[in-house]
Amino acid sequence: MTAEILAVGSELLTPQRVDTNSLYLTQKLNELGVEVVAKGVIGDDRVRLTQAIEQARARTPLLILTGGLGPTEDDVTRDAAATACGCNLVFHQEIVDAIEARFRSFRRAMAPINRRQAYILEGAEILPNERGTAPGQWLRDQAGVVILLPGPPNELKPMFEAQCLPRLVQWLPQRHIVARVLRVAGMPESDLDQLISPIYTRYTNPVTTILAAPGDIQVHFRAHGSSDAEARALVEELSRQVEEALRDKIYSRDGESLEEVVGRLLSERGATLAVAESCTGGLLAERITSVPGSSRYFLGGWVSYSSHAKTAWLGVSPQTLETHGAVSAEAAREMAQRAREAACSTLGVSVTGVAGPAPDPGSSHPVGLVYIAVADQQSCEVKERRFVGERDRVRLQASQLALDLIRRKLVGN
Amino acid sequence: MTAEILAVGSELLTPQRVDTNSLYLTQKLNELGVEVVAKGVIGDDRVRLTQAIEQARARTPLLILTGGLGPTEDDVTRDAAATACGCNLVFHQEIVDAIEARFRSFRRAMAPINRRQAYILEGAEILPNERGTAPGQWLRDQAGVVILLPGPPNELKPMFEAQCLPRLVQWLPQRHIVARVLRVAGMPESDLDQLISPIYTRYTNPVTTILAAPGDIQVHFRAHGSSDAEARALVEELSRQVEEALRDKIYSRDGESLEEVVGRLLSERGATLAVAESCTGGLLAERITSVPGSSRYFLGGWVSYSSHAKTAWLGVSPQTLETHGAVSAEAAREMAQRAREAACSTLGVSVTGVAGPAPDPGSSHPVGLVYIAVADQQSCEVKERRFVGERDRVRLQASQLALDLIRRKLVGN
Repeated sequence: MTAEILAVGSELLTPQRVDTNSLYLTQKLNELGVEVVAKGVIGDDRVRLTQAIEQARARTPLLILTGGLGPTEDDVTRDAAATACGCNLVFHQEIVDAIEARFRSFRRAMAPINRRQAYILEGAEILPNERGTAPGQWLRDQAGVVILLPGPPNELKPMFEAQCLPRLVQWLPQRHIVARVLRVAGMPESDLDQLISPIYTRYTNPVTTILAAPGDIQVHFRAHGSSDAEARALVEELSRQVEEALRDKIYSRDGESLEEVVGRLLSERGATLAVAESCTGGLLAERITSVPGSSRYFLGGWVSYSSHAKTAWLGVSPQTLETHGAVSAEAAREMAQRAREAACSTLGVSVTGVAGPAPDPGSSHPVGLVYIAVADQQSCEVKERRFVGERDRVRLQASQLALDLIRRKLVGN
Repeated sequence: MTAEILAVGSELLTPQRVDTNSLYLTQKLNELGVEVVAKGVIGDDRVRLTQAIEQARARTPLLILTGGLGPTEDDVTRDAAATACGCNLVFHQEIVDAIEARFRSFRRAMAPINRRQAYILEGAEILPNERGTAPGQWLRDQAGVVILLPGPPNELKPMFEAQCLPRLVQWLPQRHIVARVLRVAGMPESDLDQLISPIYTRYTNPVTTILAAPGDIQVHFRAHGSSDAEARALVEELSRQVEEALRDKIYSRDGESLEEVVGRLLSERGATLAVAESCTGGLLAERITSVPGSSRYFLGGWVSYSSHAKTAWLGVSPQTLETHGAVSAEAAREMAQRAREAACSTLGVSVTGVAGPAPDPGSSHPVGLVYIAVADQQSCEVKERRFVGERDRVRLQASQLALDLIRRKLVGN
């Protein structure tokens, strides 16, 4: 089975924006055994979009359209799809009622233009939108299936997951696909590939895909088989060998992010955490608290960006800063220990370094030099690293290593 | 003038990869006054690609193809372009000689399959590749211009810059382009559009594009004229009216981000800042410190995630928390004031609220309720908002409003 994805919106034809919905949709379709053979972006242009839909439908039985379902003149997906599919648009009062209720719940009045969002392709099923005003649409006709989804990812994803996946599973010929993702922290992609490519290149089923971000690598396996058990066994055979090669570098086997793993480990142990950050400037705390429920184990943090903040707020000794500097193993150690003591937490973690783009005035430390400390009641371990890249990348890698050190401390390796 | 861009390569149809060449090309084309009206990705499939080229050429006079120029069976761009353009492929011995010389310079022998790269569309100009083996091609026929470029960005960019830009400038009708972007904080897109669409829809030149993110909207204008002054005057005329409608909602007119604007205003006034965050969990500090040089004005922050952190670290009165709760105007006020005092900063800013996904245990506060306070020596202002959306979105909007309140405090409105 093949599919095409068309993203609608002139903003996606600017130099600043890239359509990322298609990556999510491709992943979900691939998991169902559907191959995406083309994708495109069309501006808010009724004529061009109508033609693009006609041409795509002539090539593939499944077409997913994203965006262009808003209430303004610029939102042309409904009209274009109706013309291309040769069907009418039918007004649904119950959609207007739902949009009005949504606005009322925020104590606002619905603008009259929102009525445009109540037009549905004749014969299509309405996909209610829990997070926005634009409902999605699922149309099955003699040419195949067309799905209309809202553009904002936070509306599109839950709608696709809850309402399109079950319909697709029913509509598609039965196939068994099993996927797994191993996630690895703090390893350069080339080192990882050198280690595991001799293993995974021996297999064409499962397919292996490697996805690298600063300090974080995902190794994806996807196998197909005539039964779920067969596909699972294929993934298992390859994954076992790769896991043996990567060992404790792997932090998750089920898609959990590093901040989720750290949160789960802390929760399981009834442990708590406090952080003291300098060069990451709040990023470490932000990542930890991005996990719902993190207040159970995260007590708080200091963004001790100035020397005054390090000494007066945290209680780092002025002598330490004078003798060793704020970017030093000694400063990192004291920051972690003082954070732990002040918060009465199980662990205290600190990050201090030079994020760049330029070295700190009057300092000889190179950009990218970072010290990270993890303290518990008994001891405090400090790591020194020299990260490569821009300010953002240095900060991201530093926060990643800090999280990985917390993980290792908690699992004991 | 309009253009389309087609990226060729099955790897660009995986969930992991996104075509970024088109962003670079769009920027360059926009600067020449060329509008990209559609773009697409096609796998390594001769038939599909041929059809896509035919369809694109029927719509637009300029088509840029990227990728698929390698030496393997999978590289089908040359063949497909020849079929679609109705011309022969001509073998050029001098290209083979150049590729062989390149291999020799690395002390390697050219593989016979590299001869495939020496086939050029009949009538096309050869665009030599300084950084790889695949030459580009420039074909001008009665349907317009087709450009074939290699996929690797480090080969594509210098080739486009040195060899395509001069040809395009010559080929395109002479035009001058001027662009401007207004950035707006804390306004729902629909409210903004209702306010300014009566203005910008009266103009087709400049073209207006609106890009919306949570709590942040960009309004782009792009005008063309027969001179730079004419294009500038057109942008000026529209922008002035939109600026009058949006007034103090606009935080930048030159692309500066809100955190950069806040940093610049603080620097200009010799003012300093400290923050106390609860529900944003470090995001506000992270955004402020994402700006290089922020240590000049940002003294630090507290992520006072627990009640203990609010009272013991910051010095918020336990009675305040008991009487009004941690999510209250009173708590926000004290957090901002205590942060300012402890940091000896010009301004103290605080955020406390319910990020979700669920309400806090034992609390009647709805998800999305946020209090933000900005304190200076004289006074402290507190705002209450109810943000809509997921945890991430609530946190992002809260940090955005906090930054905007700092900006307003500094400019005095």
